[in-house]
Amino acid sequence: MKLPAVFDRYRSDIYAELKSALAEQPASGEPMYDMLRYHLGWEDEQGKPLPGSAGKALRPTLCLLACEATAGDFRKALPAAAALELVHNFSLIHDDIQDNDRERRHRPTVWVVWGVPQAINAGNAMHLVATLALFRLVDREVRADKVLRAQRLLEQSCLTMIEGQYLDLSFESRLDIGESDYLQMIEQKTGALMACSLELGAMLGSDDDLVVQSFRDFGRNLGMAFQVKDDFLGIWGDQQETGKPMGSDIRRGKKSFPVVFALDKAQGEARKSLTNVYRNKSIDETGAIAVMDVLDSLDTRAKVQNKAEQYRDEALAALDKMALSPWARRNLEEVAHFSVARGY
Amino acid sequence: MKLPAVFDRYRSDIYAELKSALAEQPASGEPMYDMLRYHLGWEDEQGKPLPGSAGKALRPTLCLLACEATAGDFRKALPAAAALELVHNFSLIHDDIQDNDRERRHRPTVWVVWGVPQAINAGNAMHLVATLALFRLVDREVRADKVLRAQRLLEQSCLTMIEGQYLDLSFESRLDIGESDYLQMIEQKTGALMACSLELGAMLGSDDDLVVQSFRDFGRNLGMAFQVKDDFLGIWGDQQETGKPMGSDIRRGKKSFPVVFALDKAQGEARKSLTNVYRNKSIDETGAIAVMDVLDSLDTRAKVQNKAEQYRDEALAALDKMALSPWARRNLEEVAHFSVARGY
Repeated sequence: MKLPAVFDRYRSDIYAELKSALAEQPASGEPMYDMLRYHLGWEDEQGKPLPGSAGKALRPTLCLLACEATAGDFRKALPAAAALELVHNFSLIHDDIQDNDRERRHRPTVWVVWGVPQAINAGNAMHLVATLALFRLVDREVRADKVLRAQRLLEQSCLTMIEGQYLDLSFESRLDIGESDYLQMIEQKTGALMACSLELGAMLGSDDDLVVQSFRDFGRNLGMAFQVKDDFLGIWGDQQETGKPMGSDIRRGKKSFPVVFALDKAQGEARKSLTNVYRNKSIDETGAIAVMDVLDSLDTRAKVQNKAEQYRDEALAALDKMALSPWARRNLEEVAHFSVARGY
Repeated sequence: MKLPAVFDRYRSDIYAELKSALAEQPASGEPMYDMLRYHLGWEDEQGKPLPGSAGKALRPTLCLLACEATAGDFRKALPAAAALELVHNFSLIHDDIQDNDRERRHRPTVWVVWGVPQAINAGNAMHLVATLALFRLVDREVRADKVLRAQRLLEQSCLTMIEGQYLDLSFESRLDIGESDYLQMIEQKTGALMACSLELGAMLGSDDDLVVQSFRDFGRNLGMAFQVKDDFLGIWGDQQETGKPMGSDIRRGKKSFPVVFALDKAQGEARKSLTNVYRNKSIDETGAIAVMDVLDSLDTRAKVQNKAEQYRDEALAALDKMALSPWARRNLEEVAHFSVARGY
């Protein structure tokens, strides 16, 4: 499935806002900021400009869509959109250190290029630039109390995201994680910032608390659908589309949703086989094949896709509670369908 | 010199505000927050409560003093005081990872107990709890636009602090750092948050921009005096008072102000001797003695103490520009004198 058209609608505005938010920092010409621009895909390792930018810009796009759906104009929410993208990228820089990941989007990660100590600084700086980007709402004539509310929501969601990241890392050494533990963890790690993205856009577009709450529900469920589908693609994704080999999350020893599901459901020999593999630090080809066999025997592929679709349906149900223009409804539904139908 | 009495004046209120800010987080009972309480000295590694708390609480004390000096009451600034202490501690948790320091205040650092990945989360969580603590100004009936201004100032100062930390790390591998490079670095790494501490307190106590600016100047210079004296004590401090052996920063290979001063000023044989030592990663006893010899030959001890006193005098000059109550003036001057006269 192709990326929905709404992603193209806002792309250049998001990019311009991000550039401007970063340039606003007095020291942005200093070498530290090269790490930020490198991570965002704007520069190479030597600081030379690269064309275009990286990523789908999922969170800012959803934020702007929620604002346009409620207010008719999306520009007021651009500072929030930029802040969301920067917060997301702050978490990626630190995640790459924590997970010891050496590559992202086919490029060496920040810590591989600059070392762990400076990469910690890069993430912290990205986080602070995000917070400061949100203050630009004042320049768009958003009232001070609303800017404060937006700020508080973003920081609170960000803290929930860190709590999720804490849980994710603590799961690594455990074999007793249930399906519901895992879902709660990704609700914090991924769902919170996605819910925040829609809530921020809606809050800037509307003063109707029920509308804002519905967008939040939509966002949380959409975030879960995206994450479960990400976990699906990490195992059954087509290498042509994802850029990663089949079963790549299994070889990396990542306890993503399909593996947690199987650890939760498998019994007898299948369970023994799984726990044998995941007791080891690294997983070889034989181990990976054994895991895939267990996943197949439990029909995990269909079950995981089904779970993603359940969340998509919950997201769609949240939309049904609202009076939306046909344009807004169509675009929000398109993103919801994309979350589970995509192959990348 | 004894810790000035003003540090005792606010201690219990600062502690209560910190406790309350942390308890406000819905997930604060979860294991992740144990890392924060451990670092703050409130709990041991198993999560058992410890009596009292750690540290001088320098930044919150100065913030409250500035507020009391301008408004007559300090309570309005308690959320800012707590936020400053938490931001400072966020930076310490990450600094300990970056500097590979295994001990702080005679206890293992967070990364030593929980590992680097979770310690990164602990620092990030501390930072977010700090930001959220500042929003509690709203409950103290501070106007929304002033809360926003306080928030922006804190985050901007925090970004400057990260820029300083970036520079500090980048200096590690360099032998060509001049005295002014170093002073600019500590102005960012230490001075910015100290200036912010005083500015926040004054801003919450007064609407007079000139007064706020004078407190900021006082804070920046005071921060520099404290940092230069810290660097002094890292080499010439009395083990009885500092808890660290004489010359400890030299053995750790730390390029603190005295070493930078000597690298900047030494010529001929002395210069060769210094660069020989600092080209190596680790410094042995012979190397440490060679460095001490060069420092002595350049009268570095007196020069560094003198530099700290210059900053103290600048701080005192900033006070002279203001109409202050005798009580406020006496206490602010006492802290300024303490910054350079202390032995710990």
